[in-house]
Amino acid sequence: MREFTEDTITDAVLESVSAGREVRVRQVSSALVRHLHAFIKEVAPSESEWKAGIDFLTETGRMCTDVRQEFILLSDTLGVSMLVDAINHRLPGTSTQTTVLGPFHTDAPLFGNGADIRGHHTGPPMYIAGSVKNADAAPIAGATVDIWHADNSGYYDLQNIHRSAGIAGRGRFLTDVRGHFNLWTIRPCSYPIPDDGPVGKMLRAQGRHPYRPEHIHFMIQALGYRKLVTHIFAENDEYLDSDVVFGVKATLIRPYEERDGGVAPDGRQMSGRWFELQHDFELARDVEGQPGAAPVSRVGET
Amino acid sequence: MREFTEDTITDAVLESVSAGREVRVRQVSSALVRHLHAFIKEVAPSESEWKAGIDFLTETGRMCTDVRQEFILLSDTLGVSMLVDAINHRLPGTSTQTTVLGPFHTDAPLFGNGADIRGHHTGPPMYIAGSVKNADAAPIAGATVDIWHADNSGYYDLQNIHRSAGIAGRGRFLTDVRGHFNLWTIRPCSYPIPDDGPVGKMLRAQGRHPYRPEHIHFMIQALGYRKLVTHIFAENDEYLDSDVVFGVKATLIRPYEERDGGVAPDGRQMSGRWFELQHDFELARDVEGQPGAAPVSRVGET
Repeated sequence: MREFTEDTITDAVLESVSAGREVRVRQVSSALVRHLHAFIKEVAPSESEWKAGIDFLTETGRMCTDVRQEFILLSDTLGVSMLVDAINHRLPGTSTQTTVLGPFHTDAPLFGNGADIRGHHTGPPMYIAGSVKNADAAPIAGATVDIWHADNSGYYDLQNIHRSAGIAGRGRFLTDVRGHFNLWTIRPCSYPIPDDGPVGKMLRAQGRHPYRPEHIHFMIQALGYRKLVTHIFAENDEYLDSDVVFGVKATLIRPYEERDGGVAPDGRQMSGRWFELQHDFELARDVEGQPGAAPVSRVGET
Repeated sequence: MREFTEDTITDAVLESVSAGREVRVRQVSSALVRHLHAFIKEVAPSESEWKAGIDFLTETGRMCTDVRQEFILLSDTLGVSMLVDAINHRLPGTSTQTTVLGPFHTDAPLFGNGADIRGHHTGPPMYIAGSVKNADAAPIAGATVDIWHADNSGYYDLQNIHRSAGIAGRGRFLTDVRGHFNLWTIRPCSYPIPDDGPVGKMLRAQGRHPYRPEHIHFMIQALGYRKLVTHIFAENDEYLDSDVVFGVKATLIRPYEERDGGVAPDGRQMSGRWFELQHDFELARDVEGQPGAAPVSRVGET
């Protein structure tokens, strides 16, 4: 092949990537070349547009630090993360549906049921309770329920605004013999993803807002079941229809019920406004031996 | 849209990018989403493969500096740069064909015809001469002929190995009234593209070598003509059929003739081995007002 023209180059590149030792590398390389070239042929970029593409990727790389992953934001905002999530979680029957992990998960301490995980976050109190069961409606005891959420300005404890203040709005719980868990925290809010980088610039050029609807993250693991990574979204949030990362599923939307004073389900005497979220999760059995087992919790850890 | 599933998400993302103010942004965004999602659906990456993709892009970004553009290398080695070049240079008739600019062009001094541009590069002497004409075979006088090439170890003066030593193996010339130019330099060699980063890792996984066949870069500009960016490749180079950036075209391959002593075309008395490259370039008229005009050369600049 000594003549790489518009008509021959795609086949030439495909031929060149056909010699890799690993089947999977050959598959991915071939698909990448075919779809990438089809994109270029459709768009027919000018040389300055090609350069703008290179600059966009370079700028995206420059934005990545240990607390900011701009390529994941790009994947999220182009719907790729959610598509990969969907492909990897074709779950049976009524199992609780999954959504994206997001960039704000980190190891959290184990708390006893009923504990308050707000830490230094401020906002109206919220009581969260639920159960974990299997497809036969049998409770799953000892499941690890890992919860994390933003503060009521939309920032996680990991983000720069809070970074030095320590853990807040996150914790792990174990379900009891009835498969139940419960905790206190504060109510978060809908928030924009970090949009001061190239992804934010892209969103503005595409006429999009950078918001995610209000949600609480859950990661639930139990031996013999597939790991569940999901959110529970707040009913009536104005961004449910236009989540910038396309993470919403109808079955994951629940009321964050507003209460005024009275007695909370755990017997706590309340005064003023507070919220209550109840949700029951169903785990799918780990039939194919997927990595879904819960890590052994270190008892006594707080 | 409150239900982003494997079947609905592509349309949801397409809808979200349909509101941009600029037509071109809408076109490119739509094409990007369609082709990117088709790639993901075909490959069906596991979550760890998706993560490996994110890590690859992040590492590629980390490799970029003011003297290293890893995303351009990626574009080059996937055939994208050459495809974009081909799309942007659908040239009429017998015009000299184009190939990629590459990452090693920079402003070079203007020399008088016959000058030696080797600078601190070592290697066997090479005499390069040629002419610039139009489609009617009329000579183009005053065309700027910008030439650059590697040393005989495969490194350009811009690369780290030479960076502090100044300009070598590059210069600009003006064609005379007959449309001719000529110069002396040294003969370069085939060389690997920088392969100590993620692109090198990709090439090895794909079972590819990192070499480009030996070539000299030319950028030729004249008022009223389209700018020509091309190489002249050395005949019989072992990498002509497998150029890692797919830049070769049959009409751009020429003999680098070996000589032994005697008198060079410009009358210079030679001893020992030297090389001679002759090529005549044909420029396409700038019919559509493309940016192809030569910049005004500052006379007296060296």
